[in-house]
Amino acid sequence: MEQLEYADEGRTELSSLGEFALIERIKEHFETKNKSTVKGIGDDCAVIGTGRQKVLVSTDTMTEGVQFDMTYTPLKHLGYKAVARSLSNIAAMNGVPLQILVSIAVSNRYSVEAVEELYDGIRRCCERYDVDLVGGDTTSSRSGLVITVTTIGTADEDKVVYRNGAKRYDLICCSGDLGSAYSGLLVLEREKATYQADPSSQPDLDGYDYVLERYLKPEPRLDIIAELRKRGIVPTSMIDVSDGLASELLHICKESSCGCEVYEEHIPIDYQTSRVCEEISKNMIPLSNALNGGEDYELLFTVSQSDYEKVKEIEGIAIIGHITDAASGAKLVTPHNMTIDLIAQGWTSQDNDD
Amino acid sequence: MEQLEYADEGRTELSSLGEFALIERIKEHFETKNKSTVKGIGDDCAVIGTGRQKVLVSTDTMTEGVQFDMTYTPLKHLGYKAVARSLSNIAAMNGVPLQILVSIAVSNRYSVEAVEELYDGIRRCCERYDVDLVGGDTTSSRSGLVITVTTIGTADEDKVVYRNGAKRYDLICCSGDLGSAYSGLLVLEREKATYQADPSSQPDLDGYDYVLERYLKPEPRLDIIAELRKRGIVPTSMIDVSDGLASELLHICKESSCGCEVYEEHIPIDYQTSRVCEEISKNMIPLSNALNGGEDYELLFTVSQSDYEKVKEIEGIAIIGHITDAASGAKLVTPHNMTIDLIAQGWTSQDNDD
Repeated sequence: MEQLEYADEGRTELSSLGEFALIERIKEHFETKNKSTVKGIGDDCAVIGTGRQKVLVSTDTMTEGVQFDMTYTPLKHLGYKAVARSLSNIAAMNGVPLQILVSIAVSNRYSVEAVEELYDGIRRCCERYDVDLVGGDTTSSRSGLVITVTTIGTADEDKVVYRNGAKRYDLICCSGDLGSAYSGLLVLEREKATYQADPSSQPDLDGYDYVLERYLKPEPRLDIIAELRKRGIVPTSMIDVSDGLASELLHICKESSCGCEVYEEHIPIDYQTSRVCEEISKNMIPLSNALNGGEDYELLFTVSQSDYEKVKEIEGIAIIGHITDAASGAKLVTPHNMTIDLIAQGWTSQDNDD
Repeated sequence: MEQLEYADEGRTELSSLGEFALIERIKEHFETKNKSTVKGIGDDCAVIGTGRQKVLVSTDTMTEGVQFDMTYTPLKHLGYKAVARSLSNIAAMNGVPLQILVSIAVSNRYSVEAVEELYDGIRRCCERYDVDLVGGDTTSSRSGLVITVTTIGTADEDKVVYRNGAKRYDLICCSGDLGSAYSGLLVLEREKATYQADPSSQPDLDGYDYVLERYLKPEPRLDIIAELRKRGIVPTSMIDVSDGLASELLHICKESSCGCEVYEEHIPIDYQTSRVCEEISKNMIPLSNALNGGEDYELLFTVSQSDYEKVKEIEGIAIIGHITDAASGAKLVTPHNMTIDLIAQGWTSQDNDD
């Protein structure tokens, strides 16, 4: 019997295509038919339902050795993070998460106690955000751990925020700070390398609490969603920052058929993020972490100019630029008034060594 | 840095606990709080919503080397089956599936063409059952393929069928036939062994079409759900046969706090299923395939005695026994009137060789 995956003529490597192009290729062959399918592939969540109140659904997978490294990821944090990532997708649609389902594929390297530790982290995130675990699946895997979290949320029809509603002159806003999760990862990778070179060495993680927590235990910005609601602001477009600011801005520009101008000096970067960059390499600039680092799970959104007074009152929101027309492209403006094209760095399978 | 999964004292192997006991242990630590959570962990689907019309959600994972073997699983069939399995969960709640989300973790052993082949199978199942693909996730894996399908469906509040509604004297019904998917797997495993012993040999699959199709390309019994609806029958309990008849009967008995008596001679077994058993080993009995084989995705349900006339008119439904009281236990009655206790064989991670 032939091994079907090797049988292809004209083999195209996944790494040569990348995640976004792959999704585009898949999407082409599918059309939605059910009247309850309001929004299919192509936003942070699917939007479902025929009534005024919509159901939001999103699913998110983490695989060992790709999204996480067990040498420095406590299982409790991993469980928490897997849920937090998924809830962040509901936040990015301006919704409220209510239920999750968790599927795990786990090798026998993991004990029952390890799986319970993972679920303890899942439980903590559920409790913090008032979300119910309502189902899932547990199965074996030949190697490592794969965890998929599906989140179900809700939002009123007229409050759902897509990626495609940004209009020229809208203000571009960002919550929290960017690049810190990636700085946390850099610290962990550095300590891992030190440990591998000398197993008697002790990890030196003092003074990196903030960036480590940002990487290991991110929080979905449901607090920002609540603030926006309280102030009567409905963003014109929104996305969560999982792949880096540049990639997310390009998604909004593409889906909204617009351009953007963001100002380097307004991009929020924490002191620890910068410090880590300086330590790791002279050539590493914090801005690059913010643009391409990813995993911050902050919210990137646009609001109409008329909401300026309301939005600037919200603590922890930076206004980083504005929307332009499509012909102008997606640009970064430096403090010296140079204009640079934004380029996305999505997922590719280069880190994949099977 | 310590490898946290090895740090446990008092390590309990996953294989010593098994899937169902693991789920029970996890469930203990979670309680549901949202009023929209109607049914959480412990049925074929979660049931969600505050209105009359409920949302049904289920998620299902298949991992390479555990649920499927790439040496004899065409990717198109794998995609189809992954969706079919998930739709079957919605059928088992008496619901209509409407949307799916598909997450894949895929190693770079797979080409873009291979992934497209997988999605072609997914698309075929979506088209056949009028289901929309509305989202998902694609990520790398270190080894092999993991596919998780989440299905969203709907059912009116008073039509949702749980595992816990079976009442004493209810009739136990089963669609299609049982054990055939497992017979298909046995044939494929036999041919794989032959091929491995002599790579110049040609697989001999003639005359096994039915059992092979049952294993490689199962169908969710949404046709039976439609028949039941047409005839105004609402089962008192229902489950799909994914782990074998014995395991599913025990689930219904446990959740409904009842016992059951099923008659060996009424359990529907196809001729090819029996033939494969005879060929493989003198000691292999077809009944064992039906009781413990699994992956049939037929529907096992109970109806009130008053529905007898209506249910016996449905083609392809066998009435295999009746519900008894809890004290009587779950029993199989042989043609010679011997009574045997039913024992479940759930998932254990013994096939897990990481």
